[in-house]
Amino acid sequence: MKKNESIGALLTAGEQDLLPALSVDCVIFGFHENQLKVLLVKHRHRDMWALPGGFIGKEEPTDAAAYRVLKERTGLNEIFLQQFHVFGEPERSKKEFHLQDFKKDGINVTANHWILQRFVTIGYYALVEFSKVSPASGSIPEKCVWWDIHKVPTLILDHRKILDKALAALRMQLNYQPIGYNLLPKKFTMPELQKLYETILDKKLDRRNFQRKILGFGILCRLDETKEGVAHKAPYLYSFDLKKYDDALNDGLNLGW
Amino acid sequence: MKKNESIGALLTAGEQDLLPALSVDCVIFGFHENQLKVLLVKHRHRDMWALPGGFIGKEEPTDAAAYRVLKERTGLNEIFLQQFHVFGEPERSKKEFHLQDFKKDGINVTANHWILQRFVTIGYYALVEFSKVSPASGSIPEKCVWWDIHKVPTLILDHRKILDKALAALRMQLNYQPIGYNLLPKKFTMPELQKLYETILDKKLDRRNFQRKILGFGILCRLDETKEGVAHKAPYLYSFDLKKYDDALNDGLNLGW
Repeated sequence: MKKNESIGALLTAGEQDLLPALSVDCVIFGFHENQLKVLLVKHRHRDMWALPGGFIGKEEPTDAAAYRVLKERTGLNEIFLQQFHVFGEPERSKKEFHLQDFKKDGINVTANHWILQRFVTIGYYALVEFSKVSPASGSIPEKCVWWDIHKVPTLILDHRKILDKALAALRMQLNYQPIGYNLLPKKFTMPELQKLYETILDKKLDRRNFQRKILGFGILCRLDETKEGVAHKAPYLYSFDLKKYDDALNDGLNLGW
Repeated sequence: MKKNESIGALLTAGEQDLLPALSVDCVIFGFHENQLKVLLVKHRHRDMWALPGGFIGKEEPTDAAAYRVLKERTGLNEIFLQQFHVFGEPERSKKEFHLQDFKKDGINVTANHWILQRFVTIGYYALVEFSKVSPASGSIPEKCVWWDIHKVPTLILDHRKILDKALAALRMQLNYQPIGYNLLPKKFTMPELQKLYETILDKKLDRRNFQRKILGFGILCRLDETKEGVAHKAPYLYSFDLKKYDDALNDGLNLGW
């Protein structure tokens, strides 16, 4: 299906098939070799980028819509998406913005069309190993690209605000949920784990504080091996205790209260 | 306005005035003298209770709707409400449940009426000093009562699930945001603050761990006074450093990473 046909089909079928007034937007963070990136979709007309987002089917769970959007737009699958905030200001919906785009598409949209009405959006975020995924661009074939978190281009509408809030939520998450599984090798050193935290927090951490705190969470096993190929004082290897890791995902970390 | 009139007016005006498919529900926790309670509204027909909830105006921010609902239904004002989760499963909307109620109201509602359609709800929670507020019952005059968190009655629909999720979110919040301002006297002892945490977490905490951790957050000032009327080893008094407390509300606690 060509781009204009798929947009046209959405606009026609949407009123009947989609939940009104509600959308989802996904902030997909990528980690690889101490770099933090975010996955963005090129706007079809503008020199701007957008978070992968979409609408919700009339009978579709909101979480399922987020997973579907992610899969459709990026090819990514089976990533844990975390709801983090609802963006519900009326001003976030810009009728004129969309009208200009549809005009460029050569599509006529009436002033009271459902797509021009106010939308509240539910924000989701995830953190993945970005070297393991190859973003596809889905049924609406815009470019979908990883951007360095420090070099994010101009985003449409309130997407920059959504991204910033997601990053703050991800950083908060370090304080109550475990992180790192699927981002690190199965066996990793304490400095490797610390680097992950430093990359997300975008700051240096004290080595001893970090070690004390992270061991206090009770989700790590120290293995009876040291890192190979290191000349002397080889660092110990650790792995996640997956049972405790999963429990902590559900119930929160052991925070030593 | 009588109850049936106000429900009737809502049903008539809602389609034009309200955002479709979206609602808000508020979980108001109350703390007083080491007790945790939750504010519930009696269902008008059933031997069941509900969270204070409501709809969103077409041009109303979602957060403003939560504050309005709270004010209308409980008389409470100027409480910080925290968005915590969106409940977006299609199965949460029960057409039959509402039809039975409207029948008892003596109100005819057509099968495709907006109020019978699927609703996604945004959950908000807050924690207040419950001795300072006198719940009013708002324009729809159901009883509005504080319930002990251990003795919550049967709730309608998925409200028990929403309440449980809010309590989990409140407990998580202890790990990344400060709590206690407006819940404790201006000057308080370490044991009083610890009791607040213990009440929310519903478990005993180790005194020394608690003190070390809470002081590490950097939001407390130790005053040059001790608690009066205590025979010997009078405990020191503390107050919140409001500047640092506010910063921590916005940016998260200093977690010693």
